Amino acid sequence: MIGIGPGNPRQITLEAIDAIAACDVFFLLDKGARVQQLSRARTELLAAYAPAGHRVVVIDDPPRDRDPDDYRAEVQRWHTARVDALETAIIESVDAGQSCAFLVWGDPALYDSTLRLVDQLVARGSVDLEVEVIPGVTSASALTAAHGIVAHGIGEPVLLTTGRRLVDAAVEEPANRIVMLDSHLTFTQTARSDDDVYWGANLGTPEQVLISGKVSDVADEIEQARARLRQQTGWVMDIYLLRRR
Amino acid sequence: MIGIGPGNPRQITLEAIDAIAACDVFFLLDKGARVQQLSRARTELLAAYAPAGHRVVVIDDPPRDRDPDDYRAEVQRWHTARVDALETAIIESVDAGQSCAFLVWGDPALYDSTLRLVDQLVARGSVDLEVEVIPGVTSASALTAAHGIVAHGIGEPVLLTTGRRLVDAAVEEPANRIVMLDSHLTFTQTARSDDDVYWGANLGTPEQVLISGKVSDVADEIEQARARLRQQTGWVMDIYLLRRR
Ligand SMILES: C[S@@+](CC[C@H](N)C(=O)[O-])C[C@H]1O[C@@H](n2cnc3c(N)ncnc32)[C@H](O)[C@@H]1O
Ligand SMILES: C[S@@+](CC[C@H](N)C(=O)[O-])C[C@H]1O[C@@H](n2cnc3c(N)ncnc32)[C@H](O)[C@@H]1O
Repeated sequence: MIGIGPGNPRQITLEAIDAIAACDVFFLLDKGARVQQLSRARTELLAAYAPAGHRVVVIDDPPRDRDPDDYRAEVQRWHTARVDALETAIIESVDAGQSCAFLVWGDPALYDSTLRLVDQLVARGSVDLEVEVIPGVTSASALTAAHGIVAHGIGEPVLLTTGRRLVDAAVEEPANRIVMLDSHLTFTQTARSDDDVYWGANLGTPEQVLISGKVSDVADEIEQARARLRQQTGWVMDIYLLRRR
Repeated sequence: MIGIGPGNPRQITLEAIDAIAACDVFFLLDKGARVQQLSRARTELLAAYAPAGHRVVVIDDPPRDRDPDDYRAEVQRWHTARVDALETAIIESVDAGQSCAFLVWGDPALYDSTLRLVDQLVARGSVDLEVEVIPGVTSASALTAAHGIVAHGIGEPVLLTTGRRLVDAAVEEPANRIVMLDSHLTFTQTARSDDDVYWGANLGTPEQVLISGKVSDVADEIEQARARLRQQTGWVMDIYLLRRR
């Protein structure tokens, strides 16, 4: 499970490169337009660092209901179908003693299901796997670095969360929240007008866009920039830090 | 401002290596026993990646009250004294047009004062600096990778916080908290006995220790392991994830 960083191909670690060089088979899980971009980044990394004779195996994603009544249940059902697909792929394409890898966007520990998937496969006991995780730079770190800021005031906590959860979150605490997976820009509905927002899209790519300021000053600008990017390139990966003054 | 990752010298990014190779002067800020270890790591990185003829300048840390009545005020007073020292060092050792760097442990955006220090210097207007931040792998990512876990349940938030803040934090929310800067192992006082804890010390170094389990099962073991490490090597850097079931 190799974290490859959040977009800039130079934001990969030496440890990740070492791991890529030591693997025989590479699995690609994603599909769809947004993800073609990610697969391209992965393909370039493999061309640069994977050993001669390595194999790339695409695992087709089972269909998924993106707006289910029961979010948790649907995610879990979909994960099981993915475990089935992974099990078949490993049995068919990895020989005993070989190493296989997933190149995971950012860090494998944050909002990525690949590790959970592999854990479920290990729990089945049908294949004998030893799992190693290589950490990567997160998109949260790419965001704060691009804005040249510390994630928090002196000694304060930081919440990493999702757009879906932003609505539920306590309004006052904590003062610093980094929001991922939010195509609805939920803060435009929930933030106070004098909160500060630091927004970044397609960080580390040639299409990177950064906007920051008071929510009341920049919310419209962010919505427009997001819509424009989506129209121009067909995909947007964006993340933002909300800070209460 | 170059994030160099949390301990393992292979956990540096190519972008950080590029930046080190492009700098003329490197500032070292830290002092003390624990930090000698960190300075050694930085010195090795410079030997490997800095250009021939680069200079290393040690900036002596002004004295600091570690247990003040007013934590915020003392930290700020100490920062101002550090800005003075930095200002002098830059004026004395960096020529116009040259690049200078700080090698920052982990990611510069988390619980590190270097960026705040440089921002304060820029705000003085006494030296003309252009600041660039290179993100790094955080110790939080090193922790979750070493334990082979995702930081959160499906779609859940994660709080990054400090030992000092753990006491104040709401008891129930969020279910996942990653605690840094906690030499008192505050969770042994505040956690529920059936919370899970994933603890890691000196991650990415030859002295790495990992312990995980139910708080009631492993709290003593963690306290003993921490004390032993401290005795054996004179320093401990540790971090843990607390998870409510
Ligand atoms: C499925 S999550 C994966 C997160 C990843 N594991 C990490 O550590 O950053 C995808 C979300 O990460 C954020 N993200 C990832 N890469 C990004 C990039 N290059 N620019 C902006 N946001 C990014 C976005 O919020 C996106 O919705
Ligand atoms: C001053 S903070 C710096 C954090 C750093 N900027 C980062 O991104 O991880 C130092 C704290 O980070 C954590 N830490 C940093 N490196 C670590 C390591 N190698 N092993 C365990 N904890 C570490 C510990 O909690 C330590 O008290």
